[in-house]
Amino acid sequence: MAKGANKADFPVSQVRHYLEPGPIVLVSSALGGRRNIMTMGWHTVMEFTPALIGCVIARGNHSFELIRKSRQCVINLPTIALTDTVVGIGNTSGAEIDKFAHFGLTAQPASRVKAPLVAECHAHFECELADDALVDTYNFFIFEVVKAHAATSPRHPRTLHYTGDGVFMVSGKIISRRSRFRPEML
Amino acid sequence: MAKGANKADFPVSQVRHYLEPGPIVLVSSALGGRRNIMTMGWHTVMEFTPALIGCVIARGNHSFELIRKSRQCVINLPTIALTDTVVGIGNTSGAEIDKFAHFGLTAQPASRVKAPLVAECHAHFECELADDALVDTYNFFIFEVVKAHAATSPRHPRTLHYTGDGVFMVSGKIISRRSRFRPEML
Repeated sequence: MAKGANKADFPVSQVRHYLEPGPIVLVSSALGGRRNIMTMGWHTVMEFTPALIGCVIARGNHSFELIRKSRQCVINLPTIALTDTVVGIGNTSGAEIDKFAHFGLTAQPASRVKAPLVAECHAHFECELADDALVDTYNFFIFEVVKAHAATSPRHPRTLHYTGDGVFMVSGKIISRRSRFRPEML
Repeated sequence: MAKGANKADFPVSQVRHYLEPGPIVLVSSALGGRRNIMTMGWHTVMEFTPALIGCVIARGNHSFELIRKSRQCVINLPTIALTDTVVGIGNTSGAEIDKFAHFGLTAQPASRVKAPLVAECHAHFECELADDALVDTYNFFIFEVVKAHAATSPRHPRTLHYTGDGVFMVSGKIISRRSRFRPEML
């Protein structure tokens, strides 16, 4: 995905389209003059409206305090073109390097939050912390997606799905069973 | 996956291998003489040890009360051979039919919980409710996987990943970047 590829507003109530299949995402954050990016695989959709995403951000991550204190982040969706960048981001610490600079990524201003978008990603979900009730016990954050942007094509980008042990599954074939769904289940 | 295919104990601390990539799962439950199966796409790994899984079970599902009252379930991993069964289970209600009988599925006794395994699935994660703090507000259950079983092959089964609108992504190619990981990150 070239930086500056055509992107359009995307309805926040439909973020499941990109996140429910379970891709690895890049979470960007900012606080004061600092900014960071982390890889994240532990997340789930929790509600359509408001558009809620629950996720685990381990306390040892440099991003943890940036996100907890700023109460904001951007969830960015990388595609396979960024595989080695995703791995690099997961294996370095924002306490030691500026990951945007180190990995040649573009920090693009967001609309609704101070955390930057990672421009090279396919889609971006600007998030505000909606509930921190489980942060102390499980490092579990519940975010509301307040603004979403996505590249206008492809509709189904090739995403990365982590299985542990350094091994990823790459998203495969798209199949529709729409005709077998009851209308209210779509 | 034929019923009775070779299955072995699987370490509960490694359930991320199957669940972190984000597949649709079948959740089985039992209470008194009742039993049910539901499809679920909103789940995330939350911890390795104890092996915690967080997931949303909407209140309107027949399974909601069975699981909340029994405080147990089994998360079963279907593969593409079960695609139409997965869709059928998601578009019917356990209030009206016995889904095991209706879809010709085998209810196999579990080891640690009273909910049955769905024998035709690739892997099974027996769960006990670990924390219901967010059930009232978000229908969000935190389960501990207390026992896991998985088919001995293939290591990477072809799973279904839901994108909404009746459309699924089928898991694709497996790629390793293990050599680029710091050992402590594996």
